[in-house]
Amino acid sequence: MVSMKDIGRICGVSEATVSKALRNNPKIKAATRQRIQEVVRQYNYHPNALVESIQTGRSKMIGVAYNNFTDGFAGAIMDGIMERMDEAGYETLIIRWDMIVAKGAQLLSRFSQRRVDGLLLFPSAKLPTPEYVKELRAFQNPVVLIDQIWPGNEFSSVVSDNVQGGAMATEHLLDRGIRKLGFIRYSSVSSGEERWQGFQKAMRKHGLPMKESWCVDVGGHSDYGYELIRDMLAAPDRPEGLVCFNDYCALHAMNAAREFGIRIPEELSLAGFGNVELIAAMSHPRLTSVNQFPREIGRKAAEILLTATAAEDEAAPTHVRIPVELVAGDSVRTV
Amino acid sequence: MVSMKDIGRICGVSEATVSKALRNNPKIKAATRQRIQEVVRQYNYHPNALVESIQTGRSKMIGVAYNNFTDGFAGAIMDGIMERMDEAGYETLIIRWDMIVAKGAQLLSRFSQRRVDGLLLFPSAKLPTPEYVKELRAFQNPVVLIDQIWPGNEFSSVVSDNVQGGAMATEHLLDRGIRKLGFIRYSSVSSGEERWQGFQKAMRKHGLPMKESWCVDVGGHSDYGYELIRDMLAAPDRPEGLVCFNDYCALHAMNAAREFGIRIPEELSLAGFGNVELIAAMSHPRLTSVNQFPREIGRKAAEILLTATAAEDEAAPTHVRIPVELVAGDSVRTV
Repeated sequence: MVSMKDIGRICGVSEATVSKALRNNPKIKAATRQRIQEVVRQYNYHPNALVESIQTGRSKMIGVAYNNFTDGFAGAIMDGIMERMDEAGYETLIIRWDMIVAKGAQLLSRFSQRRVDGLLLFPSAKLPTPEYVKELRAFQNPVVLIDQIWPGNEFSSVVSDNVQGGAMATEHLLDRGIRKLGFIRYSSVSSGEERWQGFQKAMRKHGLPMKESWCVDVGGHSDYGYELIRDMLAAPDRPEGLVCFNDYCALHAMNAAREFGIRIPEELSLAGFGNVELIAAMSHPRLTSVNQFPREIGRKAAEILLTATAAEDEAAPTHVRIPVELVAGDSVRTV
Repeated sequence: MVSMKDIGRICGVSEATVSKALRNNPKIKAATRQRIQEVVRQYNYHPNALVESIQTGRSKMIGVAYNNFTDGFAGAIMDGIMERMDEAGYETLIIRWDMIVAKGAQLLSRFSQRRVDGLLLFPSAKLPTPEYVKELRAFQNPVVLIDQIWPGNEFSSVVSDNVQGGAMATEHLLDRGIRKLGFIRYSSVSSGEERWQGFQKAMRKHGLPMKESWCVDVGGHSDYGYELIRDMLAAPDRPEGLVCFNDYCALHAMNAAREFGIRIPEELSLAGFGNVELIAAMSHPRLTSVNQFPREIGRKAAEILLTATAAEDEAAPTHVRIPVELVAGDSVRTV
C-alpha cells in the first residue's frame, strides 16, 4: 500500500507538506495541493487512521459488547447506534460478549488494546460480577449500558421504560374486566424485573392478590421456558389472563393454550412485550403487545457516549428511559 | 491511560525492555519480567494494538460490509464469522453498507483508512457497479463475497447451493404429484436468480411448461411483494403449488391464501427457502422449507479470508457452495 512518504516522493515535496495539503492547510499553495490530490487519487492512497489515532489520542472508534447477531431487538438497537456513529464519523468495533465470557478471556482488555474511545454494553446472560464492575471502573473512557440498569447506577444507561410497560399491559387487561391475572417473569435481566415490578404495582393499585403459581419465572431459560408455561396452563386452576415478559413467552402461552383447547381470548387473554413484527404479523389471534423503540434506544445511547467522549471532564452518569406504548391486537378479550 | 514508557519509568528500565518482557523475550531476566508484569497489572496497562499494527503492517482486524442488524439469516452468518475470527485473534470492524451507499460515501476508503487486513462483503440491495468493482480490485487485501456471486468470479465467494435448493424444493412438490407449479422470484440478488434456475432446471427435466403469470418477480421489493403475490392468487387460474424465493414470500402466499379461503395444502402447496425458525414454528400449517447453514457459511468465509491474509502471494479465488437440505413441514399436500 502506498504511504504518505511515497506520495511526497512522487510529488517532490516532504511528507509534512503532503499531510498539510490533505488537511487543507492554507500555507500550502493551491497548485501544490492540487498536484498532491491528483497523485493521491491516482495511487489510491488512504490516510492511515491508526497513525492519526496515536497522534491525537482518539481512535474515533467505539466498542460494542454484543450478544448474538440473530436477536432482532438487539439488532434494531444496533441499527440506531450505527446510524448515529456514522453521522459522527465514528467506526464501531463489535466484540461478542458471550464468546469472551465462555472462554474466560478479557473483554475489556481487547477493547483497551484497540484504544476505543468509549464503550456500549449490551446485557450479558448474567448480571455483572463485582470483579467485572471494578475492571470497568478502571477503563477510563465513557461507558453506556444498553437495555439494562446495574445496581448503584454508576454507569450511564438507556432502557425502555419497563416498569411503565409492565403496568400498562396489566392495566389494559384489568380495564377489560380480567382480574385473575398471572405474569411470566424473566428474573435474570433487569428489564425482566422491572416489567414484573410494573405488574405488581398495577395489581396492588387495584387491591388484587397475586397468586404465586400463576407467576412463573422462566429467567435464565434461553428458550423462554415453554415447558414451565405449559405446565402452568395444564393445571385445573389457571389464570384468565397472562402478562408476559416478552412476545416469545406469550407465543409459548398461545401454543400451549392451543394444545389444551383453551380459547384465546375468550378463556385466556395474553399480552406480550416487544411487539416483534414477525410475531405480531403471524400470530392468530394477533398478539397484543407493548411496543418498544429500539432504534431510538440505540441512537440515544450513541448520543450520550459521543457527548461524554467529547467532554473535557468526567460527567455524572445519565439515565434515560424511553417511553413505550401498548399496541392492542386481538389476544385480549373485550369487556 | 498509562503508556509503555510509564511502565518502564516505574520499573526503572527502558521502554524497549518492557516491550521485550511482555513478549516473553528470553533476554530479559525472570525477576525483571515478573516485576514488569506486576506493574502492568497494577496500573491496568494494555499494549497499544494500533502501534503494533503500524509496526507489523497487519492490523489483525477485518472489515465486514453489512446491511442491517435485524436480518436473522445474515445475523447467523455473522455469528459464524465472529466465532472463527475470535479463534484466530482477529477483531471485526463492521460498516453498514446501505448507509454508506445512501450517502454516496466511500465504503472502501473507510476500511482502507483503518488498514483492515481483509474484507467480507454481504450483498447490497443492488448488484455492484463496474466502478465499484474497479475500486475493489485496487483494495490490495483479500476480499470474500458472502451469499452472493458476481459475474466474472474474480473474488472468492461462499454461498448456499441455491440452484440445488431451488431444484430440491421443486422436485419435492413434483414428487407429490403437483404439476401446476409457480415460482416467486427475487431477481435482484444472485441467490434469487440461482433458486429460479434450480426451479427451471427441475421443470425442464420433467418436461413441464412454466406459466409466466405464475412466476412473479418480487425482486427489489424490500417487503417481498405481498401485493404481487396476492394478485397472482386472486386470479381464477392459479397454480396448485408455489416454490418461493424465501420463507417471507411463502408466508405472504399463506396469508393471501387464507384471505381468499384457499386451503393449504389441499388447494395450494407451498415451499419456502431459509427455514427461518420463527416462521417454521409459527406458521399453520408448518411451512416446508429449504434449510441453509448460515453459521457454516460465515465460518467458511472467515476461514478463506484468514488463509488469504496469511498467504505470501495473491492466490486464485476460492468458490464454495454449502449444501442445503429440504425440511418437510405440512404445507405441501401428500400424494
